This record gives sequence, C-alpha cells and structure tokens, in this order.
Amino acid sequence: MINHFCKVPLWECNGKLVRVAQGQEPADTVIRHAQLVSVTTREVLDDADIAISCGRVAYIGFDGHTAEHCVGPDTKVIDAHGLYAAPGLLDTHIHIESSMVGPSEYARGVVPHGTVGIYADPHEVANVRGLEGVKAMWADASRTPLKIMLTTPSCVPAVLGVEDTGSSIDAAQVADTMTWPETCGLGEMMNFPGILSGEKNALGEVQETLKADKPVTGHYVTTDDDRGLNAYIAAGVTSCHESSTFQDVLAKLRMGMYVQLRQGSAWLNLPGYLPQLVQSGVDTSHCMLCTDDSHPHTIVADGHMDRVLREAVRLGLDPIVAIQMCTINAATYFGVGLDMGSITPGKCADIVLFEDLTNFRAAQVYIDGELVAKDGKALFEVEPFQWPSFMTNTMDLGIDITPQTFRIPVDTQEDTCKVRALGVNAGDTLTRELTVQVPVRDGSLQADPEHDILKACVFDRHHGEKGTHAFGFISGFGIHGALAQTVSHDAHNLLVMGDNDTDMALAAKTLADCGGGEVAVMDGKVLALVELPVCGLMSDKPVEVVAAEVDRIEQAWATMGCTLPSPFMTMGVMSLACVPFLRLTNRGYVNCITFQMEPLLAE
Amino acid sequence: MINHFCKVPLWECNGKLVRVAQGQEPADTVIRHAQLVSVTTREVLDDADIAISCGRVAYIGFDGHTAEHCVGPDTKVIDAHGLYAAPGLLDTHIHIESSMVGPSEYARGVVPHGTVGIYADPHEVANVRGLEGVKAMWADASRTPLKIMLTTPSCVPAVLGVEDTGSSIDAAQVADTMTWPETCGLGEMMNFPGILSGEKNALGEVQETLKADKPVTGHYVTTDDDRGLNAYIAAGVTSCHESSTFQDVLAKLRMGMYVQLRQGSAWLNLPGYLPQLVQSGVDTSHCMLCTDDSHPHTIVADGHMDRVLREAVRLGLDPIVAIQMCTINAATYFGVGLDMGSITPGKCADIVLFEDLTNFRAAQVYIDGELVAKDGKALFEVEPFQWPSFMTNTMDLGIDITPQTFRIPVDTQEDTCKVRALGVNAGDTLTRELTVQVPVRDGSLQADPEHDILKACVFDRHHGEKGTHAFGFISGFGIHGALAQTVSHDAHNLLVMGDNDTDMALAAKTLADCGGGEVAVMDGKVLALVELPVCGLMSDKPVEVVAAEVDRIEQAWATMGCTLPSPFMTMGVMSLACVPFLRLTNRGYVNCITFQMEPLLAE
Repeated sequence: MINHFCKVPLWECNGKLVRVAQGQEPADTVIRHAQLVSVTTREVLDDADIAISCGRVAYIGFDGHTAEHCVGPDTKVIDAHGLYAAPGLLDTHIHIESSMVGPSEYARGVVPHGTVGIYADPHEVANVRGLEGVKAMWADASRTPLKIMLTTPSCVPAVLGVEDTGSSIDAAQVADTMTWPETCGLGEMMNFPGILSGEKNALGEVQETLKADKPVTGHYVTTDDDRGLNAYIAAGVTSCHESSTFQDVLAKLRMGMYVQLRQGSAWLNLPGYLPQLVQSGVDTSHCMLCTDDSHPHTIVADGHMDRVLREAVRLGLDPIVAIQMCTINAATYFGVGLDMGSITPGKCADIVLFEDLTNFRAAQVYIDGELVAKDGKALFEVEPFQWPSFMTNTMDLGIDITPQTFRIPVDTQEDTCKVRALGVNAGDTLTRELTVQVPVRDGSLQADPEHDILKACVFDRHHGEKGTHAFGFISGFGIHGALAQTVSHDAHNLLVMGDNDTDMALAAKTLADCGGGEVAVMDGKVLALVELPVCGLMSDKPVEVVAAEVDRIEQAWATMGCTLPSPFMTMGVMSLACVPFLRLTNRGYVNCITFQMEPLLAE
Repeated sequence: MINHFCKVPLWECNGKLVRVAQGQEPADTVIRHAQLVSVTTREVLDDADIAISCGRVAYIGFDGHTAEHCVGPDTKVIDAHGLYAAPGLLDTHIHIESSMVGPSEYARGVVPHGTVGIYADPHEVANVRGLEGVKAMWADASRTPLKIMLTTPSCVPAVLGVEDTGSSIDAAQVADTMTWPETCGLGEMMNFPGILSGEKNALGEVQETLKADKPVTGHYVTTDDDRGLNAYIAAGVTSCHESSTFQDVLAKLRMGMYVQLRQGSAWLNLPGYLPQLVQSGVDTSHCMLCTDDSHPHTIVADGHMDRVLREAVRLGLDPIVAIQMCTINAATYFGVGLDMGSITPGKCADIVLFEDLTNFRAAQVYIDGELVAKDGKALFEVEPFQWPSFMTNTMDLGIDITPQTFRIPVDTQEDTCKVRALGVNAGDTLTRELTVQVPVRDGSLQADPEHDILKACVFDRHHGEKGTHAFGFISGFGIHGALAQTVSHDAHNLLVMGDNDTDMALAAKTLADCGGGEVAVMDGKVLALVELPVCGLMSDKPVEVVAAEVDRIEQAWATMGCTLPSPFMTMGVMSLACVPFLRLTNRGYVNCITFQMEPLLAE
C-alpha cells in the first residue's frame, strides 16, 4: 500500500538518491563502521556504512566499500563503531490507551527504546468518541516523529445489545476511514463469532478493507483451531495476536496467517510458545512481534519493543530472526516493504543503533534520517496537546451521585437474599457465575465484606439523563472501601465497587468531577487517584508521572486489603462482555456465552 | 495490490467461504488425502484435505481433521493419495515472445507443467506495435485460465538514437498502463545506465510505477555491485533476474532486492550460484525463480517452472524452499499474497498435484478451483486467436528486395578493402569489434566465405519508404547460404546475413512475404522456415508445431556449415545495442560502450 509515513515519497527523491549513492551529491548523514543487521539475508554485515539523504537510505557500503564518497562538508558523520545498526522496530498491534497517555506522550516514551512505528488500534477512544475521537488522537499523533499508523477499530461496540457505548462504527464508516492517509488496515476483528455466523456488518467491515487493499488484522481466541479458524481466515483476516499455545501459533501459520507473538504488560505470551516455535524449525517469515498493551510502568521501567526482543532472545530465538519479526516481516505484512523494515537503499532511514543483540539497549534512534533519541532519552519536544473539549468532557452521567444512588431496593421480608455475583480469579480474565446470599437491610441489598462480596454498579457515562445504570455483586477482591474506574472495557462506562455506599459515592463523584480515571477510596478519603481526563482513558501528563500515579493506586489496593496481582486490570474487565462467563454492564448482568441478560436476583 | 486475476474477489465471496469451511454449504471440489506443501511454514502436512468454493480454498484439514463436512451430493471429490499438493507455480519474469507462440498457446504449453501464473513483459511486441500491440496480446491472454499478468515494458526502445523501432513507450504511457487491471508492475528496467545517469524518462517510469503502488522489476548487469547497484536500487527498483554469480545474488539480497534466480532456455544461471546460495544459509525469502525466456522446444521437451524446480533441487536446494521461491515469495513480492502463493483459506485454489518433489511431474493442475491440466495435457481448448491485422502486417519495408539491394558500393581502386566486422563467439552474447579485409568486385564490397566473413544487412521494417537499412560484416557463423530473421532484438528489424546476395535476397523476400520469422536459404532454396506472422515474433500455430519448425531450422544451420550452439539465438542479438561491444542496426554499426555510431570502413 502507499505509505504516507515518510519524509519524502520515494518517487519524489529517487533522482537525488541516485546521485548521492554515486557520490555526486553529499549525503545529509553518514553512519560509519556499524554492524549492520541485514534482515533480508539474516546476517550481520561487519564494518558497514550507511548514507542518508531525503530521510532515506541512499547507500549502504560493506565488504570493504565505504560511504566516504557520500561525505560532503555539511554531512553529519556518525561513528557507530561497536554498535549494531538495525532497522527501526515496528509494533504490529497496540492500543495507545493502555499506556494511559496520549499519542505524543506515548511516542516520547517508546521511541528511545528503538520503536519507530506502531500499528495502533484506537478501539477504546472509538468506543467513547467514535471516529471523531480517532481523528483527534491522530491530530496529536501527527506531531511526533513516531510513525503512528492507524488500524480502524472494527468492533465498536464490541458486543451489540448488552451495553451502551459512547459511539459505534459500521462497515460504511470503515470504508470511509480506508481513504484516510493514516489508515493502514482494519483493527483487530474481535468479533469472530460474528464472522463465523455470517453477521453482515462484521463481514462487511472485512469486505470494505479488502476492497481498499489493506490488511484485516485479527483476534481469534483458539477454541476451535479447525473449522472455525479456517472460516475466520477464509473471510479475509490475515493476522492474529491471540495465541496462547504453540499449537495455536502453528495452526494459524499453516493456514497462512501472520502470527503476532505478543509480549504486552498484561499478556505475556512469549514463554507459552516461543521455545517450541524455535525448536520446531518452521519458517518464521510469517511471525511478527507485538505488545498489544504497554502500561505506563512497563514503558518507563522496562521499555517497549526492545523489551520484547530481550525476552524473545532470552527464550532462545536467534536475535536476527527476532529483529526480522518486528521489522521486515511487519513491513511485508502491511505492504510497506518498499519504505520500511530494512536498512537498504531507498528505504526510510529508520535505524536503531543497539549496543548489543542481547539487551538491545538503544544508543541512538533515527527516524527518517533524524536522530530522535539518544541514550534512552527522546530528543524531540512535543508541547502538551490541546485536546478539543469533546475529548475531555466525556463524563455525561446525568445524575448527581450520592450514597443513596447505590441503594438496591428489594422486595423481601427476609434478612438475606440470593443474588448472582461475579467471581474473579487471580490473574485471569475469565469470571465465574456465583450464587450468593447477601444481607438485606432497610429494604435494600447490602455488600457482605465478611464474605468478600462487594456491591458493584456500572453507570452509562455517555448518554446523560437517558443513561441507565445497573447493580451487581463481585467476589474475590477482598477489599474494604471503594474503587471506581472509567477504563472499564469495552464501553468504558463508570464502574464502581465497594463494601459501603459512602465510599462508593465518593469514588464515583471524584471521577465524575475530574473527567474520569481510576480512584481508590477508604473510610471517606481518597487514597489514590489517576486522572484520565481524555475520554476517561488517557492522562494529559508525562508517562513517568502517570506511571508513578498508577504505582500509588496499586499500593492503595494493597492497603485496602487486596492481594490479587494487578487488581485494577482485573477490575477493568468486569464489564468485558465478549469474554466468558458473566459480566456486569450498565444494562445488568450478561451471560457471555448466550449473550442474554440475566437478572440480579437468583432463583 | 488489488489482484484482478481470480474468479471471484474475496470480498464478494467471503461469506460463502465461511459457510463452506464450517460445513454449512457444500464445497464445489474437495481434494483429499494429499501431502500438502505448506509454504508458509516450510513443511509437508500429511494426509491433508482441501475444500474449494468460488474458485478459492475455503478449508484445509490436517492433523486428523478432514473436509468430509464440506462434501455435498454435487461436490467433486478428488483422491490425492500419494500426491503432493503444492501452490500453483508462478514465473516472475518471462517474455512470451521467446516461445514464438501467442499467449493462449503459451498457456496451453506451460499450464500442464504446473504453472498457474506468469508475470510477462511484452517487450518485443511493444517494440513492434507499442501499447496497442500489448493490448492485442492481452486480448488473447484473457481467453486462457493461465493468469497472464502484465508488467509494462519499460525500455521501448531499448537504446535511444541508434536504431529505429516500431514504437516507443514513455513515462506518461507507463502511468496510463498502471491503471489497467492486468498491470502488475513495471517490466525489467534494462536501462540501468539511464537510471544511474539520472535520465528523466527512465526515472520517470519508475516514479509513475511507484505512485501506482506497483513493483518496479529490474535488470542490472552487475559490473558494479557497490555504488551503481546501490543507486539503481535506491531509485526504486526492487527485483532483478540478471545475476550470474553468487556474489551478485548476495549483494542484491543484502541491498533489499528480490532476486529472481533464472533458468531459461538460453540463460542457465542456476548452476552458477545456487549451490553456493544453499551452502551460505542466508535467508531465501527474497529469492524467486524465473525463466525469462522459454523456447518452444524447451516447453515441449522439458517443461517450464517444473523444469526450474527440478534443476534447483538437483543442485541441492530443499524442494519446499524451491517451491516457496515460485509461490509465496513471488506472491509476496507482487503484493498478492492475499490471493495467491499458498494453499490456505481464502486464497485462489491454484493447486498442482505433483507425483513427487524431485521430478515435479504435475499429475493435475487446478486454477481457480478448475482442473485445467491432467497428466501433462491441457484440458482447456482455446480457439486460434483472430489477431487484428495491425498485428500481422508488420513487414513494412517500403522496398522490393532483390540481389541488387545487397550491393555495397565502395569508392576504391583496390581489390580489397578494410572494414569493421562483428566477431561472434560460441554461446556468448558479447561481440568483438574486428577489422578485416574483404574483397571488392564491380565497385562493391563482397562477403568472404573462405575467411568466414558474411555480409549482413539490417532493414528498418517499421517505417516503409522512410525506413533505412545498413550494411555490415559478421564473422564466426561459418555458413554457406543466407539466413534472415525478424526476431532480431530489440528493434526486431529484418536482419539478413549470407555469403551471396542471391540467397540473401531470397531469405529477405521470404520473410517479407510471410510476415516475418526465421528462414534459412542455400543455393537458391529455402531449407527451413519458421513463419512468425504476429509482429514478426510469434507464430499462430501450436507450440509443438513451432518447436518442430525450430528444430528444422537448427538442422538447416548445420547443413549450411554452422557448428555454433543455438546459432539463431546468437544471430538474434547481432543488433542488440544495449550489450557490448559492437552491434549492427538499421542505422549502421553501434559502439555499445560509447553508444556512438561507427563507419563501415575501417581506417
């Protein structure tokens, strides 16, 4: 596909590159004496030179050939002796929102780690603010050197008819986005049940993307690696990052998919299949790497694609093969191999100088021939983005929340009542459907902290007075106090849970007032708050600050008695209606197998 | 790029494929119990099933999964027990004209050998009849199941200002062809000197192709594998079939090119680099196979891409890797991996059933799910093509040729005269510039058969009375009699050579009368004739007939005293002004280093 992420299109500068390669005009920059990672041959070329002009590679010299002839009086010459020059790293599937910062701040976080391009699926923002929200994100994105490439969110809402989102995207809108220069494909088609059942809009989105000659990226949880997977791929979906076993990976590769091996902050899949993949000896040209999500703490403390490479190599993958998976293979998949993915003549000069191929510490990062990061620090400054107000006023609850709001009246004379509850497990996205007895007091259902049963409420935050809210119970967090968040996937409504109505009200009101985020409240006091005023999903602060705020809220969880790992993440999927078994949305309980609503009161 | 070579676009049939994969609708055809060559994983999957619908693969079953659920009462079920199912073979660079038959006859010749698609560069027809001629060829091409994909000829004429061709193509015309559905790229950019010197039209053709998001195929004879090659690639040329050594191949791969390993009829390159390539262990995902030219005899006696595979495997290449090079790698290079190159769900059902992976005998060939060849025989019939008259009336000489026409007057009193002559070498395209003494009789220069010096004449056959002709001498063929041909690259003018004017006149007149071709004349008698009435390049007869005719003319050469291998081919490049050192065109001698004309008479 035509690549719009370069300084100058090749057809505008090929004449100049021809002259620079032959020494008839000086290069802008020459990198000398590098160990060049050749991803096209899977070799390292010793003592190689790279001449750059118009943001592109004009010449590479090796085997005794140097770029001395490309050096003029104004040419910047970089001595890369002892460093490995690799193509800039591409993340083939990510959600910027998971980092809780905006695109430009995300860029500042990941570029120093060698990442030069990301294929971002703004699924969360789209659920809150639709394609207008996506456009606003890309207005920020376009201000950074990072190549932030758009894959149009395909599942907005993720599941139809069981909750209320802020917006929706249909096949006609997908077709429209395919004409945008920043669009590089369709975002993860999570609605594989829709594809398999021939649901018109799901198939239609795929069709519109195929017509536009762009790839359809996938999300297929392998329950059936035979007929279902065949059908899903035959529909036109050509990649998938949702594999958890080597058997999954292999089935997808054999059926022609590009498989994205994922090592995110939450989903650490590499150990689950990479050693077997290495051992199998199968062709890896259809394997790519991705993070899917990178939390702010991960970016700050561990890095981004460099971190994935590190883990891949630690698990036994050849370092050059690992680099191929996030450079040439990715560029090939997205049809931009002419411009990206290798350090070869004509390509964008997106180059990382690594200190070694074990730790992958990026000493220097070049994008379109410009030095954009050095020794772990971004060299570009981006002014804080002035988000349009529709992006920062997304808490449209339509009610004043008080403790009374959380009263669940019940028509019973008993002092307990049998209700459905969500059971959560440590580090697992699946839930269990429980039936529990909760106390009844003053004609209303109560939390039961002694038995670890919290009250929960999900408020539609998108439709003001027309919005609804619904109650439920959750078991497994073991806290005293209340927690609330607006990240809550995938409708990003306001989810509140707690063992008392007063703390719940304070938690909810705190987020309503600050524009959304995450908050922990105990005994009438806010213990920690991460303000996410942009769509209730992203901060407007630097990633380091957000990482520290998230740390504080994790500590608050512990203070409140929770022993689960990453409890906010687990809380964040309590409304995620596309994953089994029981979830709570603003419309009530959803059975995520039948996609039918279920009542609060159990038989 | 959008692929127009399929029965039904995927976006029109993905819903149906989804149903077929799940057994909700029957498949059209099911191939059972095959050894499936998985080019995406580089494996053979035992006892695999393939279900086909809408001309595409809907389902593949392996690891105990079968396609029984796709079989309905009308489903054709093929038992492929003992056969290997490989993706149909793609030839990434060919000139149909080299086979001396038209596209549909070419299809009949190569499809039984497992070839399902070719990327054809109609360079020769374009030199005679321009883009109108190309359109006429594709009118024939479109009548066959073979996917005959067009790469627009880039070098028409091949060299400017030294000869007269029938037509020309410039950058604006290239841009126009890029909108044609059959166009899949730019044909071999032979004018690498033009690229390196920044020649506007050469760069412009590349630019127009890049703007259209299609690949620019190359032709770079590696005299300089450093600056020149870098510059050529930086211009945007992404493949090359002109490599003769492993060093060439490796340099091109390292610089990001897709390298087409060639095994044609004339150019047998595989032995020259393949063993070293295998031994090197470098990544082969950027390697492809091609024939470039396949003479009728080769197609009839030896095959096509199956022959290339056979040779590659004989030289030590892993058979699956060899198949990758003419399936998935080719499809990836041309950006049609979504539709071609692998037997995986959603792809066109272009499938060859091979008896083994050594001899690659194709038992059955499927294109878009239809059985099109079986046991070496094409199952499709194509009526002889009714070529428009502008394609069959291309001998526009503007003069009546008689023995007198070949008189070369000279102003001398001596009985000999010193002239330039072309020296030819057995099996070599390069010529030598000789200075020889030829007899003078009746005030005109004579051939000197005793010293193996033939008279030669090239007639512009495109411009009628305005056309010119020029004389020269050729040494090395050692014949008595005369030979003539209109294939004569790259202007395809009428080249005649002989040791006497009478035979030369008969040879020339014979071709003038039959519309062009190749002819051998001795002692006033036509010994053999291959009529090529279509543009003077292609026969309208079956490939087997043409092969036999070519055999007869080769025998005639021997009868006439020639001991060179394939002498008609050597004769065919006497006018080829883009290859060193001296050539004869209708304008006279060309020095192919300086591209200056040189006089007949030597100092």
